[in-house]
Amino acid sequence: MIRVTIYNEFVHEKEERIAKVYPDGIHGAIKQKLSEKGDYEIRIATLEMPEHGLTQEVLDNTDVLIWWGHVAHNKVADEVVDRIQKRVLEGMGMVFLHSGHESKIFKRLMGTTCALKWRENDEKERIWVVEPGHPIARNLPEYIELPMEETSGERFDIPAPDTLVFISWFEGGEVFRSGCCYHRGLGKIFYFRPGHEEYPTFYRDDIAQVIHNAVEWAAPVITTKPTMGHFMALEQVKDKFAGQDDAMRTHAYIKD
Amino acid sequence: MIRVTIYNEFVHEKEERIAKVYPDGIHGAIKQKLSEKGDYEIRIATLEMPEHGLTQEVLDNTDVLIWWGHVAHNKVADEVVDRIQKRVLEGMGMVFLHSGHESKIFKRLMGTTCALKWRENDEKERIWVVEPGHPIARNLPEYIELPMEETSGERFDIPAPDTLVFISWFEGGEVFRSGCCYHRGLGKIFYFRPGHEEYPTFYRDDIAQVIHNAVEWAAPVITTKPTMGHFMALEQVKDKFAGQDDAMRTHAYIKD
Amino acid sequence: MIRVTIYNEFVHEKEERIAKVYPDGIHGAIKQKLSEKGDYEIRIATLEMPEHGLTQEVLDNTDVLIWWGHVAHNKVADEVVDRIQKRVLEGMGMVFLHSGHESKIFKRLMGTTCALKWRENDEKERIWVVEPGHPIARNLPEYIELPMEETSGERFDIPAPDTLVFISWFEGGEVFRSGCCYHRGLGKIFYFRPGHEEYPTFYRDDIAQVIHNAVEWAAPVITTKPTMGHFMALEQVKDKFAGQDDAMRTHAYIKD
Amino acid sequence: MIRVTIYNEFVHEKEERIAKVYPDGIHGAIKQKLSEKGDYEIRIATLEMPEHGLTQEVLDNTDVLIWWGHVAHNKVADEVVDRIQKRVLEGMGMVFLHSGHESKIFKRLMGTTCALKWRENDEKERIWVVEPGHPIARNLPEYIELPMEETSGERFDIPAPDTLVFISWFEGGEVFRSGCCYHRGLGKIFYFRPGHEEYPTFYRDDIAQVIHNAVEWAAPVITTKPTMGHFMALEQVKDKFAGQDDAMRTHAYIKD
Repeated sequence: MIRVTIYNEFVHEKEERIAKVYPDGIHGAIKQKLSEKGDYEIRIATLEMPEHGLTQEVLDNTDVLIWWGHVAHNKVADEVVDRIQKRVLEGMGMVFLHSGHESKIFKRLMGTTCALKWRENDEKERIWVVEPGHPIARNLPEYIELPMEETSGERFDIPAPDTLVFISWFEGGEVFRSGCCYHRGLGKIFYFRPGHEEYPTFYRDDIAQVIHNAVEWAAPVITTKPTMGHFMALEQVKDKFAGQDDAMRTHAYIKD
Repeated sequence: MIRVTIYNEFVHEKEERIAKVYPDGIHGAIKQKLSEKGDYEIRIATLEMPEHGLTQEVLDNTDVLIWWGHVAHNKVADEVVDRIQKRVLEGMGMVFLHSGHESKIFKRLMGTTCALKWRENDEKERIWVVEPGHPIARNLPEYIELPMEETSGERFDIPAPDTLVFISWFEGGEVFRSGCCYHRGLGKIFYFRPGHEEYPTFYRDDIAQVIHNAVEWAAPVITTKPTMGHFMALEQVKDKFAGQDDAMRTHAYIKD
Repeated sequence: MIRVTIYNEFVHEKEERIAKVYPDGIHGAIKQKLSEKGDYEIRIATLEMPEHGLTQEVLDNTDVLIWWGHVAHNKVADEVVDRIQKRVLEGMGMVFLHSGHESKIFKRLMGTTCALKWRENDEKERIWVVEPGHPIARNLPEYIELPMEETSGERFDIPAPDTLVFISWFEGGEVFRSGCCYHRGLGKIFYFRPGHEEYPTFYRDDIAQVIHNAVEWAAPVITTKPTMGHFMALEQVKDKFAGQDDAMRTHAYIKD
Repeated sequence: MIRVTIYNEFVHEKEERIAKVYPDGIHGAIKQKLSEKGDYEIRIATLEMPEHGLTQEVLDNTDVLIWWGHVAHNKVADEVVDRIQKRVLEGMGMVFLHSGHESKIFKRLMGTTCALKWRENDEKERIWVVEPGHPIARNLPEYIELPMEETSGERFDIPAPDTLVFISWFEGGEVFRSGCCYHRGLGKIFYFRPGHEEYPTFYRDDIAQVIHNAVEWAAPVITTKPTMGHFMALEQVKDKFAGQDDAMRTHAYIKD
């Protein structure tokens, strides 16, 4: 059984206006819908918990970490970010949702600013599947239409994804690479664009299907952890300078 | 004319043994050979210079930064690393040589440990061109054979390159992705494996050809810097809730 | 249950020398070992069967087609090649083994010559895992060592794989991209290098693990088949020339 | 000087309605604008010429072949298609424009149907630059806005591009990967979406800039043509069975 931890900064939902949309928090909605899709062991982590709920023990027992954050990215402790990065590189999967693109950990894993264009304008978003044979497109229609969402626009400053699964169309005139797969270390990362706190996006069945697919895809592969550092030769190597001094190396080299 | 800055930590060459191989420093050899290949404006930067020779002004006037470092990666100041990363994302090219894979700035741009297997064993390296139509393969033979080099082996913990140009074979039994291209922000990055300080690798003509090709490829493209942040709609967007209260949003959404 | 069809041209095994290595045919060995790894519905197809055993009905009931061929590529009927290509683009997975790189269907799907260097020389091959987080690396060691195999060498004239999972080292001095993943249409394709008929490679457990992993990875994703061809607008489009003649189009355009 | 051949099927322009838009043919417009951007040696080829103007001699003297075709794809002789494919794999660049996605040669090089959604509806297209550091984005604005174009929509059945440079937004609700780079053999291929015959798209300066950039990018790299086929070992290989019979091979292998 895949062990999922849902991190939600859980700040917006303390406003009444947002609490009406997500009475159990964004994490509550994700958990509820994900549980309908598969049999997962799900933990919740929020910013205000000790170590944001992301202790070493929790991470060691997490196969896939889902991340929703927005206004409080900078309140996430650097040592927790270090710890998460290490776990991803060791194989833990991550699914970043919406404004998670600006989290410290996403920027750390990408190496870029991860900046983009945005506005809040009640615009229609249509998420087109461009790689329908990919496991994250499983059981999806040709496109997902969201009646209103926050808008994100290119240029999205990310490394080109290993696989681009979705591209979004926005009513106001923009496009966006909205479903992006990456391998980093032994871990797999999926970025999925929608999920602004003012809209009940995470209660949608199609969105839950994407998150479910992404969790299945990102779950770690059991494999041999590669050896790093000093390593003995597997084949016999000719001793080129037996009994000679070091200067011979340069000499031999330059002759070549 | 492309403006190149060569950063060399310039530590090993203070030992007599290494100074015999690189009497003008590794940077001196790279500069000499690169100058034979093309008409460049070349600056030198070393660890011991103020700000390691990589002031904002130098970076602002650098099109491509070449990086050789090994034992002193951790002596490079974090603020210089920040500055370089920012310039790469704005368009400056970088060419990382050999142990540069473990520099702070390379790890920062990659998001991974960039660890690998290694040994110093005077082994033959044969660098095979696997993407001969790529500009970094220009004027190269099918493979470059180095009579002796430090050995690097897979698993190399990097993101899969956007383009893989070279793969190395080693006498002791390993393979290595030894020529790796990346886009990061507006900048282009090339990692090239060979160049251990004990061998006169940088005096070779074939190696100089690769560095020359890489500099030409990595030089910035003059283009429009993308707008980031809040952005007005380019198309008229339907006002879906004129005169209605916020609750209607959720209602409308869920109906969908 | 994944439905696998194993195509083997089944020519070499008619020689006594090869029959000693593969008394049940190469397909027999693959079938036996794959059955030990998972619960599959397995069919066999060979060149000499009517339509090479690859009728429309067989393909319609195949999730993943494994392909071994060598000396008789040109005896495969073009209409069967057409039929396979169509099924791959509709979602059927394919796993190409060894000399399958020169089959009509592989070349058709790649668009290139798929040529390479080769020799038969009893050389050691060491297959390094370079993307250990990929599902095709599941339950594998860091490398697989084959005491003797036919040698393949770069340049391998293929499109750069979507994901490169393995790189081989050969005793005679070559490297080779030996585990290559592709999406083509809705289908997924994996090329895996080893498997010369003179060696009992397909009886090895590690090789069987790779083929098992590849079959699981290549099995089709259930998704919506995209609509192709003429398509009505999903959004209302402004009628820019109501009541005007066609010449206005050009006029309006050029003004822009 | 880069030698460019522009192939235009030159059928639509024989209608008066289209001739008003392109009085010198689509090829004439491309030639005129490309000549303003750089110093090229330009040849024209059309369907009705002997061998469609694409003799072996012409191809041998072409660095980059630009392709515009639409209604007459099937009139292009297969032997000419074979000849072009061979030249691309040997290093000739190609730039495919608009409906060129359905040409025999593009489908041959891609291995897929290259089908898409389409309609002719006078819609606005906005071409967003998603990889602004790429040479094909040189001297371009953040986006190119075309007041009216034929619409193309995803799913576009192509292999994922090696580099995706542009994504288009359409007024009617679709998105499209409209600038796609590929390496095939030693050749480089760029697909660029716009250019319906009813609009004077090819007279635009921004579109000419893209074609100019693409030609520069796709021009062949002078490199060593890889050796293919039988190849002698570069390293001494241990003779494992001197004086033993063939059965020992299998025996040795299985022991492993």
